[in-house]
Amino acid sequence: MTPPATPPVLLVGAGPGDPDLLTRKALRCLESADLVLYDALIQPGALALAPHAQCFSVGKRAGKKAMRQETIHFLMIRAARRGKRVVRLKGGDPFVFGRGGEEALALAAAGVPFEVVPGVSSAVAAPALAGIPVTHRGLASGFVVVSGHAESAYRPVLESLAPRAATVVVLMGLGNRAAVASVLLARGWPAATPAAVVFDASGPAQEVWRGALDGLAAAVVPEDAAGAPGTLVVGEVAALALSLAQPSPARSGLSTVDFIRSRR
Amino acid sequence: MTPPATPPVLLVGAGPGDPDLLTRKALRCLESADLVLYDALIQPGALALAPHAQCFSVGKRAGKKAMRQETIHFLMIRAARRGKRVVRLKGGDPFVFGRGGEEALALAAAGVPFEVVPGVSSAVAAPALAGIPVTHRGLASGFVVVSGHAESAYRPVLESLAPRAATVVVLMGLGNRAAVASVLLARGWPAATPAAVVFDASGPAQEVWRGALDGLAAAVVPEDAAGAPGTLVVGEVAALALSLAQPSPARSGLSTVDFIRSRR
Repeated sequence: MTPPATPPVLLVGAGPGDPDLLTRKALRCLESADLVLYDALIQPGALALAPHAQCFSVGKRAGKKAMRQETIHFLMIRAARRGKRVVRLKGGDPFVFGRGGEEALALAAAGVPFEVVPGVSSAVAAPALAGIPVTHRGLASGFVVVSGHAESAYRPVLESLAPRAATVVVLMGLGNRAAVASVLLARGWPAATPAAVVFDASGPAQEVWRGALDGLAAAVVPEDAAGAPGTLVVGEVAALALSLAQPSPARSGLSTVDFIRSRR
Repeated sequence: MTPPATPPVLLVGAGPGDPDLLTRKALRCLESADLVLYDALIQPGALALAPHAQCFSVGKRAGKKAMRQETIHFLMIRAARRGKRVVRLKGGDPFVFGRGGEEALALAAAGVPFEVVPGVSSAVAAPALAGIPVTHRGLASGFVVVSGHAESAYRPVLESLAPRAATVVVLMGLGNRAAVASVLLARGWPAATPAAVVFDASGPAQEVWRGALDGLAAAVVPEDAAGAPGTLVVGEVAALALSLAQPSPARSGLSTVDFIRSRR
């Protein structure tokens, strides 16, 4: 059986940040790409894996508006029609937030074949790198993932969930951590519920804040991680971060957990 | 700065099945491993990446009991103390179900340094490979992940969630799909809510059943995928599987979506 040809557009997950957390398949996609359209949080080391490609940032940057979503669709479709091998490189997994589904629908509507290459999602990896399993026997038998970028994104889901029913993970939650905490407290979550913030998971500025839900609003953002993404974790499992924090674990030279600050 | 030494035990996520979805870091861990303790669903192609290692299955197999959890802990700790480089290779992400947190706690209690290497979780990858984004503007702003292996694992979480509040993903959900569906229907989810079952995501027998929540119980398991894991997806996003299914996408020769059967 001949394997089917590679489609012209690949929607590729880049993982949480560290280029070592790209998949082998993502690596091969990058190696043969002609054009890489990448998000703002993609690390330079990931782009270096695409030696033959033109690389364009299409994500939000400080002081600049993000490219319009329609423009991203247009660029992908035009390049594919010109015979280019296009990689749309997205942080984490391409189908977790970040409008990957819309990009796939645009390609489908244009009749441009594509493939989704799953990636390591920060929803799971950020907690894990901080020593927090999102599920754990006796503590949590499930987890809920929302985006913290806007109240309309997290409030309806968090209000629909009974207190302590599952671990709550909030991606891009740093800016709205006070508001997220008050939604949970108003919903009836105990103030002492363990909570953590993982800054720049797997990136060079990775740090972890650990405390309780009622201290989340006052969690201190380390200077190095000021521009980096932050993942919130709320639930009993967050207390495991202390037992499972590794002082000097990383084979790649990244510090996995080198900053634990509790305000309890 | 000298990078810290690699710890003797690495808890490594193998991704959903296809060895191409291992991370670059997981590959390096396997390449230098002396001992690999792997779960039942790990594909032979992943073990082939560990040429110098002794590989032992510690997972459940048909007709045999799984190794006791304490025995797995003992084997990891003993090998580490003997100077072996140990990879504990787990399906998906090491900290999503599968008792990875317990294994980490056992290592920590024994004073054996370890590192968690996140992997691609089937919670996100299985839906994505079936053309289903777990979040999508206007359809779902969050998702909930539970394990379907036992009623005590999924019922409390699913009953704690208001109907249609988020996409529901049930890992290892094939055997209990009828019971999962009745919990959701009793909780007030509409019978016509789109649903899907992804068999053997990224594996050689990958197939997708697509239908509605009230048809989930009668979803037909394809013969090839009879022994393979199944992931359930319930929510409006499951309807996107039809638009986003790719007839011949895979660069690796795997069929990403070649079987869509609806019983609506």
